[in-house]
Amino acid sequence: MDAKFINPFLIATQNVFKTMLSTQINLGKPSVKANNLTLGEVTGIMGFAGDKKGTFTISFSKECATYAYRAMIGEDVPTINSDVVDAIGELTNIISGQIRVELEKLGINLRASLPTVIVGQNVAINFITPLPVITLPFSFDDGGMTRQLFIDFSFE
Amino acid sequence: MDAKFINPFLIATQNVFKTMLSTQINLGKPSVKANNLTLGEVTGIMGFAGDKKGTFTISFSKECATYAYRAMIGEDVPTINSDVVDAIGELTNIISGQIRVELEKLGINLRASLPTVIVGQNVAINFITPLPVITLPFSFDDGGMTRQLFIDFSFE
Repeated sequence: MDAKFINPFLIATQNVFKTMLSTQINLGKPSVKANNLTLGEVTGIMGFAGDKKGTFTISFSKECATYAYRAMIGEDVPTINSDVVDAIGELTNIISGQIRVELEKLGINLRASLPTVIVGQNVAINFITPLPVITLPFSFDDGGMTRQLFIDFSFE
Repeated sequence: MDAKFINPFLIATQNVFKTMLSTQINLGKPSVKANNLTLGEVTGIMGFAGDKKGTFTISFSKECATYAYRAMIGEDVPTINSDVVDAIGELTNIISGQIRVELEKLGINLRASLPTVIVGQNVAINFITPLPVITLPFSFDDGGMTRQLFIDFSFE
């Protein structure tokens, strides 16, 4: 896995959070994913095909998912309902589009599939590839509370 | 959702089971998926991109997954371990390839992403699309026991 792939995911995710959610998010230390469990509670999955084939997931803690919903829709929501699932699916689509724009700058043209959204903590999502899966941990501060999201991706 | 899409999934899945697993599988009644829960215990997810964007999942009951593993690898396995996950991922890849061959005959060219495999019963996998998700239930007899698998798919 070439480290140059990290930047497109970083820039795309930060840009979407900044423009759509007016939120500055910070990247922690990228790592090779050590297990197959979802790190958040609501996880979008998107497949890429084209010059390469790949998959990325974006996993939101419950608090981050409800924060994103409130920032997008303007309503508070107490729990992860189907509206939140749809909003996270839409956010997965939008971030996926930005990632593809950034990857095009590296000469890599990809098309996106339909996203799916998984609800549940510690759900085993196994990437079927001999290549490493990279985890990018993001966080931001919301009135003294730290909210987290995690992007995992792999490309062949 | 055009009913003509059902046949490529049917033919591809039956062909792969026949040629790779020497198993004749039968299609039950296709339906529009009424909820978002996995019907089996090991579920491959594959994204398609190209002329259309879509996603399909193939969900194996525990008994069907261990049967498929034995038929592919020649070893009994008591439980869903990482070897079974890898085998189901490989089967998802192979069936996806056959589906794309069949869809090409309808003039639809697609490319595949990397598959992921989810382990767990009643896991909520939400397809993010306004279009219906079609479920194709398959079954076969294994020495008096019925074994089941389910394909769900949607295209835009």
